[in-house]
Amino acid sequence: MPALANKTYFNYGGQGPLPSPSLAAITESWQCIQELGPFTGSIWPWLAAQTQGVRGDLAAICGVPPHRLALTENVSSGCVLPLWGLPWQGGDELLISDCEHPGVVAACRELAHREGLKLSTLAVGSIRSVSGEATDAAVLDALEQALSPHTRLVVLSHLLWNTGLVMPIEAVARRLEHHPRHPWLLVDAAQSVGSLPVAAAASAADIYAFTGHKWCCGPEGLGGVALSERILNASRPTLGGWRSLTNENDAGLDGPGGGHDPWHHDGRRFEVATSCAPLMAGLRCSLELLDAVGGAPARLALIRERSSQLWLGLQAIPGLKALLQEPPPAGLVSFELECEGRGHTPASLVEKLGEQGVWLRSLDDPHCLRACTHLTTTSEEVEQLLAALSSLLE
Amino acid sequence: MPALANKTYFNYGGQGPLPSPSLAAITESWQCIQELGPFTGSIWPWLAAQTQGVRGDLAAICGVPPHRLALTENVSSGCVLPLWGLPWQGGDELLISDCEHPGVVAACRELAHREGLKLSTLAVGSIRSVSGEATDAAVLDALEQALSPHTRLVVLSHLLWNTGLVMPIEAVARRLEHHPRHPWLLVDAAQSVGSLPVAAAASAADIYAFTGHKWCCGPEGLGGVALSERILNASRPTLGGWRSLTNENDAGLDGPGGGHDPWHHDGRRFEVATSCAPLMAGLRCSLELLDAVGGAPARLALIRERSSQLWLGLQAIPGLKALLQEPPPAGLVSFELECEGRGHTPASLVEKLGEQGVWLRSLDDPHCLRACTHLTTTSEEVEQLLAALSSLLE
Repeated sequence: MPALANKTYFNYGGQGPLPSPSLAAITESWQCIQELGPFTGSIWPWLAAQTQGVRGDLAAICGVPPHRLALTENVSSGCVLPLWGLPWQGGDELLISDCEHPGVVAACRELAHREGLKLSTLAVGSIRSVSGEATDAAVLDALEQALSPHTRLVVLSHLLWNTGLVMPIEAVARRLEHHPRHPWLLVDAAQSVGSLPVAAAASAADIYAFTGHKWCCGPEGLGGVALSERILNASRPTLGGWRSLTNENDAGLDGPGGGHDPWHHDGRRFEVATSCAPLMAGLRCSLELLDAVGGAPARLALIRERSSQLWLGLQAIPGLKALLQEPPPAGLVSFELECEGRGHTPASLVEKLGEQGVWLRSLDDPHCLRACTHLTTTSEEVEQLLAALSSLLE
Repeated sequence: MPALANKTYFNYGGQGPLPSPSLAAITESWQCIQELGPFTGSIWPWLAAQTQGVRGDLAAICGVPPHRLALTENVSSGCVLPLWGLPWQGGDELLISDCEHPGVVAACRELAHREGLKLSTLAVGSIRSVSGEATDAAVLDALEQALSPHTRLVVLSHLLWNTGLVMPIEAVARRLEHHPRHPWLLVDAAQSVGSLPVAAAASAADIYAFTGHKWCCGPEGLGGVALSERILNASRPTLGGWRSLTNENDAGLDGPGGGHDPWHHDGRRFEVATSCAPLMAGLRCSLELLDAVGGAPARLALIRERSSQLWLGLQAIPGLKALLQEPPPAGLVSFELECEGRGHTPASLVEKLGEQGVWLRSLDDPHCLRACTHLTTTSEEVEQLLAALSSLLE
């Protein structure tokens, strides 16, 4: 991983480093497209096999059959494309957690404006206890307080991008089944796919949207979304293009006034048109490299070894306070400055660490720093970060 | 161009070959991202410069200021993202030419279903005369007949993907200015950008959507759309993501009940979230290679030399009939089989030519074959295609 050769890297949750074999696979894929195509009878079976391969890999990770998996460009398109196609009714409520990414929140707000929907807040940001059952109980309690008879959608990340807590997606899905309107469950999986075992959550959610370029260490520009059968049945196509059509020469027009349904009814309904095919080979290569380390539970254990080491080390640095009360459940370690009055802010600390070649990021809400540990994070890197923080705060 | 080394290629309108320097530029871009980033303080200025560069290049091609240019994944997203954000009223009419790509037609049909709009047809498919003024007069005549007081949008390709005629986009735009509702003009520019001078048409249209992977010979997965000021003013965001936000940490929520506008008001309004940044370097490299041959008018003259040669050669082959009455205005050469009864169909001919390493495509409407000539097409390749066709039809 060339990205890790010249820096100490803790921003896997922003973007993962691309392994050299994955870049080689992308380049070879382009060469193969040039040799067989780019637009010939020889290329179509090859492209279909590539697409089927990556769709199958991602569907397996999500624990869903391949027809429930749509390939997307990024997390936002995976969230919003199916969302905009759902049959909303004026007055429906969108219940959005207070730990969602601003991009998804803004898109929901726009949808609410357009369809006359109401927004309400699911308060999970103040939960700081990690010990599994306590977190789950707190989330379900917050859900109970926030649900209304009009709730039609719940938006909740699987792994919260700011506090780093894992949300009990399956339990939330079960609770929603008993709500009279059985609200849809949209899960932003930007931080979970590639860092947690996700099959149980992804197959329980209605829309489970992720990207390959963060914890999977694939190339930027390719992700996916797992969709429930009821979403596939209820949602109309939104952005439509040749890839969403069952026959790309058939727009569904039968002549004046007539028409038939031209759209795919599986995940392809939300795939649009031409995208960058060579990225599929890159993502598959990165996923194979992850699998070579071990299964998802074993990988999470390794990730947690380093995040625990970091969390423990933070306890010993005066002026810093980890957001969570116990070692993190995954690889996100967020921490606050106890007194910002001494001339430091999260952003200024990030900048000073960057000058030393140590990269993490700051967040606005809560106002904190966030370091991510992945399989490639070494014990020495964690010690280096802790030493740098101690030194800056002395 | 490795794609051209082992085949005789006439499918530039489907996908252009990727030059080796462009693939090298993409790979180098990825290496640079790994060296500087992928998510560090060092990468953001570099990424901003790359984005600004390609936005500026594409805006210059379109004759618009950069703030009117949005980067997109493909033609469909360029057409549909701004379209879905416009303030439609039930009963508005969408006037769609009968030569549009099924992907765009199906998307318009879906929009019509959602918003209660009517579809009507602009008949330009039967025009077969190339001589500039006659084509333009026929198109404007068809427009005059098809416009109604309720027309709110006209959808017309710049270079028709089936017959290969160039549409008088500026004249159509001027005519629409005098319609009481001043309908928006959506132009599918999939076939024109990279093959024609497009600045006058692109700057006259409201939505001028194109891709880099056809006639520009860039990588698949990156295109753009030029937007008029009135579209930027009237259209709300559709898919929203961090790239559409003026501050990616700000979703526009001010607290309970309050809110402010978080969205960009320039082309970035329709850019969504993370896409494949290295493609920008590849497209810019391909555009530079085109420019090295000459300006757009000089390049079109070269493209037409070969398409004229092919068109003339087709006149001499019994059983084939070129769609157009005169040599084509650009690089698309479509031709029909005069009697399909002799065991040939467009699809069967395409397959047999493919077995000889000669690649063109068939179209359903009109039922024909289509060969494209580009700057890289040689006189010998055209003769080879003509000889192969003659031989198959003997």
